[in-house]
Amino acid sequence: MKKYLLSPGPTPVPEECLAKMAEPIIHHRTPAYVEMNKLAMEKMKKVFYTDGDVLIFVSSGTGAMEGAVVNTIDKNDKAIVVRSGKFGERWGELVETYGGVPLYIDLEWGKKLEPKLIADLLDKNPDTKAVFTTLTETSTGIVYPIKEIGEIVSGTDALLIVDAISGLGGQEFYMDDWKVDITVSGSQKGLMLPPGQAYAAVNEKAWKIIKQKSRACYYFNWAKYLKGQVGAGKDPFTGAVSHTKALLKALEIIEKDTMESRFQRYKVLAKACRAAVNAIGLELFAEVPCDVVTAVKVPEGIDGKLLVKKLRDEYGVTIAGGQAHVAGKIFRIAHMGYIERFDIIIIISALEMVLAELGYEFRMGNGVAAAQKILAEEYI
Amino acid sequence: MKKYLLSPGPTPVPEECLAKMAEPIIHHRTPAYVEMNKLAMEKMKKVFYTDGDVLIFVSSGTGAMEGAVVNTIDKNDKAIVVRSGKFGERWGELVETYGGVPLYIDLEWGKKLEPKLIADLLDKNPDTKAVFTTLTETSTGIVYPIKEIGEIVSGTDALLIVDAISGLGGQEFYMDDWKVDITVSGSQKGLMLPPGQAYAAVNEKAWKIIKQKSRACYYFNWAKYLKGQVGAGKDPFTGAVSHTKALLKALEIIEKDTMESRFQRYKVLAKACRAAVNAIGLELFAEVPCDVVTAVKVPEGIDGKLLVKKLRDEYGVTIAGGQAHVAGKIFRIAHMGYIERFDIIIIISALEMVLAELGYEFRMGNGVAAAQKILAEEYI
Repeated sequence: MKKYLLSPGPTPVPEECLAKMAEPIIHHRTPAYVEMNKLAMEKMKKVFYTDGDVLIFVSSGTGAMEGAVVNTIDKNDKAIVVRSGKFGERWGELVETYGGVPLYIDLEWGKKLEPKLIADLLDKNPDTKAVFTTLTETSTGIVYPIKEIGEIVSGTDALLIVDAISGLGGQEFYMDDWKVDITVSGSQKGLMLPPGQAYAAVNEKAWKIIKQKSRACYYFNWAKYLKGQVGAGKDPFTGAVSHTKALLKALEIIEKDTMESRFQRYKVLAKACRAAVNAIGLELFAEVPCDVVTAVKVPEGIDGKLLVKKLRDEYGVTIAGGQAHVAGKIFRIAHMGYIERFDIIIIISALEMVLAELGYEFRMGNGVAAAQKILAEEYI
Repeated sequence: MKKYLLSPGPTPVPEECLAKMAEPIIHHRTPAYVEMNKLAMEKMKKVFYTDGDVLIFVSSGTGAMEGAVVNTIDKNDKAIVVRSGKFGERWGELVETYGGVPLYIDLEWGKKLEPKLIADLLDKNPDTKAVFTTLTETSTGIVYPIKEIGEIVSGTDALLIVDAISGLGGQEFYMDDWKVDITVSGSQKGLMLPPGQAYAAVNEKAWKIIKQKSRACYYFNWAKYLKGQVGAGKDPFTGAVSHTKALLKALEIIEKDTMESRFQRYKVLAKACRAAVNAIGLELFAEVPCDVVTAVKVPEGIDGKLLVKKLRDEYGVTIAGGQAHVAGKIFRIAHMGYIERFDIIIIISALEMVLAELGYEFRMGNGVAAAQKILAEEYI
């Protein structure tokens, strides 16, 4: 059965990048590798829209998140954590693990974040060291107002640290213009690569703090990366050679395409996806839906887990169900990375077939038609 | 120029494994992935020769080393560290980073380790929590007497923790029989894969200690891996899907070949390599040379760095130079993983050509002939 991957990470990898994954390995201490590494870091800056430094890790995105915490937060340091999804919760778990004092902004999953909440908390806690939040919360499909948050946090001594693991390269994001100090991301989402590599972009304000920290860490000690990797293209520990080769190919694709067209394209894909599920009579989960993943409420009387399972096992289409307390209650369709217009047609078409099979009442084809209309008129 | 990789990591990857790296990505929360993961962990036990649990990480080998320290050593815990090479030093750095009290056994690089030194230190420090050492020290080419060390340490409460990053799958090693409690390894050496995945094998004695630890850690918190990965095939964080696919292919190759034939084969390759360098008039660096990498002293009057550079840039053959204070003074030829008999002929032949060019006096062809003789008679 032909397979289609529309989960919000890992995402499908372009054939040219897969071919790079299959290239012979070169040694990581050769000039050829060092050049590759430097070029990858340089081009990644354009994806983050930053003049800061980009670090490349061998880890999943969580490794980069852990690094962002251990390198900035000492024991008893206050940190504001926006917690309204699985990955916001992960920031909180990390801060707690390392003895920081999290000041939580707890919102119901999928609910809008008012930046004023952060401003108020910062006012009350001027000794806050960092604000941890998320560009697009993969577990709920929401986008947070990072630009507005940046305006608030940049006026204080606190660092603004953003998890852009699922958003980078898909959701509009301008690190420097939006005054973000640290952004972390991973390979297997908008960057169109297999899982295995993670990234952090770090500005001067953040380096000043990081350099003062004495926190015990080794593999994720960012000072080591600044010295070896940023300075000289030399990974402190053996780099993921195949991923870096594939990354360069992905960055070439992104560069030719341009970041701006990609932002526009995912916006249209998201709009088409939303129009389609609405036309089927389904409701969105996120109050402010992002451009890279659409979270949809499972309609009354339908078994959400069975829906996702049938799509995968009987139609070959993999999407994601809900996590934690929304398991079985929502499903999530990705439109990031190497997912394009006919992938949306495929998932909407398959979704309609499965919903019909499960006894949901609607007019088959309405969803596809709604998506087609938008894709025909607005897709670039 | 045709390229040959004979460095002690990363090593060449068999074409069948490279092809796996290029396969489409599957989602890490599907039954298909969970099955792959479980099978990989099960087969890895045979490579470690253990009935313990095998954990799989997305990281370089150092990440698994860090995990072995943070999960077993609390602040002020005493740990014996055998330090006579770059990777022994890394154990020490890790123990120090996390506030442990390292009891160092400092040997000159390349010198033999007397297990009695460990016994004496354990006698004097019965409260020692762990002994950290190395199977094959990649930086010097020595093999340590792990079996004898296991006899000593297993009689105490201390854990024996072995870095088998370069040795696993090449150098004879029987984790359970030799009473090793934790073994860590990486993908890019004897396992014939690209860098990006690391492994740990953990026995019951070690789990008992790990479960009592309260040390702050998140990404390398092995309890999370025990629960999700070992228990249910579910990685706590997105796994390196491509690597796991390639790992299964590598394990299939190893299984068909058998571990025992491979041990024998690398023994013969090492013997041929040593005979060849001796026939050229060169000296070995390690007092007890291992089977997976041969470290050779650069002869008087020859520029060691230039030698390695010429081999790489003019002949296409990548080996490794010396690290730290032996930079320029030794070079290292790997015979691990997917390196076989004619690769040894290639490197010896190229080495002779470069040595002649650099003005070293010897009879061209003697090295190759010495290697040929052993390979013809003993290679399996």
